[in-house]
Amino acid sequence: MEVIDQLAPERSKSQFDVDAMKIVWAGSQHAFDISDRMARLVASDPAFRKDYRVTLGRKELFKNTLRKAAHAWKRIIELRLTEEEASKLRTFVDEPAFTDLHWGMFVPAIKGQGTEEQQQKWLPLAYKMQIIGCYAQTELGHGSNVQGLETTATFDPATDEFVIHSPTLTSSKWWPGGLGKVSTHAVVYARLITDGKDYGVHGFIVQLRSLDDHSALPGITVGDIGMKFGNGAYNTMDNGVLHFDHVRIPREQMLMRVSQVTREGKFKQSDVPRQLLYGTMVYVRQTIVADASSALSRAVCIATRYSCVRRQFGSQDGGPETQVIDYKTQQSRLFPLLATAYAYRFVGEWLNWLYTDVTQRLQANDFSTLPEAHACTAGLKSLTTSFTADGIEECRKLCGGHGYLCSSGLPELFAVYVPACTYEGDNTVLLLQVARFLMKTVSQLGSDKKPVGTTSYMGRIEHLMQCRCDVQRGIGTCYNVSMYMPSE
Amino acid sequence: MEVIDQLAPERSKSQFDVDAMKIVWAGSQHAFDISDRMARLVASDPAFRKDYRVTLGRKELFKNTLRKAAHAWKRIIELRLTEEEASKLRTFVDEPAFTDLHWGMFVPAIKGQGTEEQQQKWLPLAYKMQIIGCYAQTELGHGSNVQGLETTATFDPATDEFVIHSPTLTSSKWWPGGLGKVSTHAVVYARLITDGKDYGVHGFIVQLRSLDDHSALPGITVGDIGMKFGNGAYNTMDNGVLHFDHVRIPREQMLMRVSQVTREGKFKQSDVPRQLLYGTMVYVRQTIVADASSALSRAVCIATRYSCVRRQFGSQDGGPETQVIDYKTQQSRLFPLLATAYAYRFVGEWLNWLYTDVTQRLQANDFSTLPEAHACTAGLKSLTTSFTADGIEECRKLCGGHGYLCSSGLPELFAVYVPACTYEGDNTVLLLQVARFLMKTVSQLGSDKKPVGTTSYMGRIEHLMQCRCDVQRGIGTCYNVSMYMPSE
Repeated sequence: MEVIDQLAPERSKSQFDVDAMKIVWAGSQHAFDISDRMARLVASDPAFRKDYRVTLGRKELFKNTLRKAAHAWKRIIELRLTEEEASKLRTFVDEPAFTDLHWGMFVPAIKGQGTEEQQQKWLPLAYKMQIIGCYAQTELGHGSNVQGLETTATFDPATDEFVIHSPTLTSSKWWPGGLGKVSTHAVVYARLITDGKDYGVHGFIVQLRSLDDHSALPGITVGDIGMKFGNGAYNTMDNGVLHFDHVRIPREQMLMRVSQVTREGKFKQSDVPRQLLYGTMVYVRQTIVADASSALSRAVCIATRYSCVRRQFGSQDGGPETQVIDYKTQQSRLFPLLATAYAYRFVGEWLNWLYTDVTQRLQANDFSTLPEAHACTAGLKSLTTSFTADGIEECRKLCGGHGYLCSSGLPELFAVYVPACTYEGDNTVLLLQVARFLMKTVSQLGSDKKPVGTTSYMGRIEHLMQCRCDVQRGIGTCYNVSMYMPSE
Repeated sequence: MEVIDQLAPERSKSQFDVDAMKIVWAGSQHAFDISDRMARLVASDPAFRKDYRVTLGRKELFKNTLRKAAHAWKRIIELRLTEEEASKLRTFVDEPAFTDLHWGMFVPAIKGQGTEEQQQKWLPLAYKMQIIGCYAQTELGHGSNVQGLETTATFDPATDEFVIHSPTLTSSKWWPGGLGKVSTHAVVYARLITDGKDYGVHGFIVQLRSLDDHSALPGITVGDIGMKFGNGAYNTMDNGVLHFDHVRIPREQMLMRVSQVTREGKFKQSDVPRQLLYGTMVYVRQTIVADASSALSRAVCIATRYSCVRRQFGSQDGGPETQVIDYKTQQSRLFPLLATAYAYRFVGEWLNWLYTDVTQRLQANDFSTLPEAHACTAGLKSLTTSFTADGIEECRKLCGGHGYLCSSGLPELFAVYVPACTYEGDNTVLLLQVARFLMKTVSQLGSDKKPVGTTSYMGRIEHLMQCRCDVQRGIGTCYNVSMYMPSE
């Protein structure tokens, strides 16, 4: 049976320079070249194939991910890839893995919160993957409210050690990726208690498993928390549970850049401003917005191609049916998603600039724009991830029954994407923070505190209040973001 | 560690008679008793356990479903369950299986479209499951547009046979549940061609596999179409692909209640009105609305219980944190879903009445209310399934990170539910049909054709056009269905 390329005629109709658009999308010719090279590298290597991923049982799936992670590591070294190239390669391997947490959370936590000596001791081990680390913050009973964590780290001056302990069921660490099966170490967040006083939540480097036989160390109960949404998706990740029964670690394993406990058990705060930690949050959320664009564009790409190939109804005299992309109902659902994927790409660029700007100001001890930058990234993280999750599902529905098959790629795109609405700040909680920031900004309008950045228009409140809008009724639509923008 | 029942205090606060509500929800004391008995029967039988379902690879999962289906069949016979009881038992086994298609589509198709003799020949075999049937309508290239199906059934007067053939790749049957591995027979929809003329799509009983060794018969290529959304979900079902290479069947295997082909190859239409077929469509969509209520209520139940148990923020002096159900943001998302689950329950009851009413009228050759009944069920099918799919996902998000774990039940509820937005009429296509019906009704307002049922208010158009609404602006919300109702 003859199979015709049905996309070629559609592609030939393009009215813009596709190659130029590829560069715009990538950000630069340099970024495009790396992306293109890494994509080919992954696509041509059978060790990275993923077509049978959804058919594997959990155990085989997980083993497969371990093999891929090891293979990726081998290739990165063999080809002497730069950090930028290695990161792109992992993007195209496209499988959540313990390495995401090792490189994306464990190493940065030590870099950001460890002293010089701590960095010198631990980073070389982590860089060579002689130890593998995860980031153990969330507990069974505590997610959004980090200050409510129950795990304790009690200083024992007799032995110069901290005793890490899980006093309740709800204090069990729950969710950390890489914890369930792989990690040898973790940065554990626990309430620091010394001299009988609770000094709140701090980070500690804790060894979990033997470097000889990988067995759990005494006092440590650790395991995998089971299946998650979707077939492949995050089931390639060993999200774990961790319970401590009076586990002792040397005092030097508390991350001491910002706060310290002395040999005598005295708590000290260094002069490193705590606000520096918020800079990291801005960075992480900025990458989430960029990822939203990437995830949405993949879904839109599949749905657009399908809409060109799929024909239904409208046959005249036995001729071919109408391509579904020519139906207004299909267009009105699909095209706003396509436009949004591009919009988020450019919002991501802008947030990248914002992060650089905030970082430079923080280094100059200027904290004035931090709350506004924080609100911006919180709001945009919430908006873009919610819309992207819904948008991927809409793309799936736009492919009719075929979108329900894993071979369409869409079910896994959805399942692997949706946790972005919950992690790094639950979207509802984040919007409440934005609302609180906006209310505070409004309440300060008469004062010396001038609104900055995206809220600076509020400084013209008196003028704005006098403006009248000529529009008498709006047409409600999810996409009409301009409704929420100030109009004069 | 002590585990406290945190739901008991919440339950004790209930201000209505819970036992009375159970009866209302079930529909009657009789229905409740059966439901309760069957629920206990399934829950107490280890052969029906489903807790490890999501961890199985595809093959084991499917074998497991076969075992359960056989066990259910055994129990139904041993306990001499009534049809109503058997149906409830299958509801609680809660796993899509080939039996759904055998009992829900294959048998009804023969009952509805077969002649008396055809029913006498085939139904006893089907009832005893000596043959297992599926419903092969959708093709790779043809879903919503049934009239566009490409499979042909060409009458050969020389042998008194039909030749069933798939002339193209897109004409392959694609999706039928039970087809991939299990079915021995299918009702196949194909274009009837006789005397060189195309008489459109009709149903034919076609044997697919040997009753001796279950191998595919000559000319038949059949297989499973692969993984679908979710872990368990519809992966317990062997949705299949089927290709015919000039497969011959006796003329008597065309379902001939409505149309016939004579020994000489003449096409005849019986006097059975085609509209009767629409009655079935009203029935099927009515059950879909009832299922929407059931699916949404399960998700809401999980999210509500979680919201009572989960505590986050708001701890005073080290006391317990606030139950998340006490947050307005949680309530404003959860409670409308709870209310909707009840609303759909009662809409389902009303549609049940509508189906009975339409059926009685059809039997008396009164077709006057059929278009309105058809539009009602199409619109309600679309509305309730779209809202329920979104509602289940909202419930999942309301459980935060824990909703992403399969152990919450929510990922599988979503994955198994969403195809309802596509099957039995794609929701967008159905809404276009409703719009067309409404436009036609409006255009006929001046004529003899009076609007009936839910559209009868349009008969008062002149009065309505003079009414003024006092409301000046509406608050957009998905739940505010009353916006779309006539106000006077």
